[in-house]
Amino acid sequence: MTRAVVLLSGGLDSATAAAMAQREGWELFALTMKYGQVHQAELRAARAVAAALGVSRHIELAVDLSAFGGSSLTGEGDIPKDELGAPGIPSTYVPARNTVFLSLALAWAEVLGAERIVIGVNALDYSGYPDCRPEFIAAFEYLASLATKVGVEGRPLRVYAPLQHLTKAGIIRLGAELGVDYSLTHSCYDPAPDDRPCGHCDSCLLRARGFSDAGVPDPALK
Amino acid sequence: MTRAVVLLSGGLDSATAAAMAQREGWELFALTMKYGQVHQAELRAARAVAAALGVSRHIELAVDLSAFGGSSLTGEGDIPKDELGAPGIPSTYVPARNTVFLSLALAWAEVLGAERIVIGVNALDYSGYPDCRPEFIAAFEYLASLATKVGVEGRPLRVYAPLQHLTKAGIIRLGAELGVDYSLTHSCYDPAPDDRPCGHCDSCLLRARGFSDAGVPDPALK
Repeated sequence: MTRAVVLLSGGLDSATAAAMAQREGWELFALTMKYGQVHQAELRAARAVAAALGVSRHIELAVDLSAFGGSSLTGEGDIPKDELGAPGIPSTYVPARNTVFLSLALAWAEVLGAERIVIGVNALDYSGYPDCRPEFIAAFEYLASLATKVGVEGRPLRVYAPLQHLTKAGIIRLGAELGVDYSLTHSCYDPAPDDRPCGHCDSCLLRARGFSDAGVPDPALK
Repeated sequence: MTRAVVLLSGGLDSATAAAMAQREGWELFALTMKYGQVHQAELRAARAVAAALGVSRHIELAVDLSAFGGSSLTGEGDIPKDELGAPGIPSTYVPARNTVFLSLALAWAEVLGAERIVIGVNALDYSGYPDCRPEFIAAFEYLASLATKVGVEGRPLRVYAPLQHLTKAGIIRLGAELGVDYSLTHSCYDPAPDDRPCGHCDSCLLRARGFSDAGVPDPALK
């Protein structure tokens, strides 16, 4: 059975990508990064999504990117509100985050003998982060082939990023067909102490627009 | 002044690469990874080397690669002794370690506006790890250009790996010319409780052969 390491954030994109990987018949190993994000709501969501998927194992790995600073998502400055679509890369960008996360997924994949790394990046309805673009994913896959023992031995290790060319609405429609329970997922960058989403950060705005365009209500909003 | 993030392990290679970067006139920021290695001797050595270099800042970042297992260097099985040159990739290989370390250096480099990442890999007198080869380093540099805000903005971020084509003896001769104090460095994978090297692991054997070939005594051996 093909093994796959899934980067699971607790958000709706990674939950959908994981469900797609499961539909492929792969055995799932979920990796959630505790990277110094200022709230814990997404970790709780990741646990719920992993449990719902029935993954073979779930590792929560700490790597404190706040040591480097440079992002509002790890505590430097305020999370921007109602600025979706503003020019430039927003302050929520965490420097090299996806490179770091994919590298760690690669490390575990190599130990597991996994042939796939699953990541829910998408480059249409996204915040403009450089490390969500298809050319970045392709470059990482090439790097992985050189970086590892399995690569050297000629076995494949592919990065499965099935959402790359989907809109947020398309992702939600697809996930709904696959039975993804979006009530378990969390997207907000700046939730209230009871995990309630702010409704104004980029991630809330993208999520709201996605559900609206998909024509379905967001089950996470009570 | 050009800023450079230096991956500093406490070993002689990274100390030499750092000294070469300093000779280039760059301002050094040292990054040492606490990745779950079974002993702390190399962390103590890294602190001593960073202090001797007078780096602008030294971050010790924890990322517990032992969570994934798969390496004798993070506690799975015994460190091989007197097996240097045995065929295959040795058990001391830590899956995807250099990919993970370079990714984290990239994250910090981006925040600092650093234009260089310095890594002391070498592909001649080495243990046969896939992520020490020049083609791996080149692929990472390409990835970095796509992964980051600075890459997108067209500013350069280069990986400086000046030891790639040097023998261990050549590295030691060069470092000695630059005034590297090798008594501060630690190479052993399996030291005694008082940090004394075992003399039999791959890393001890490579070091001993390097000093011998360079015709100088190893100042770390009392």
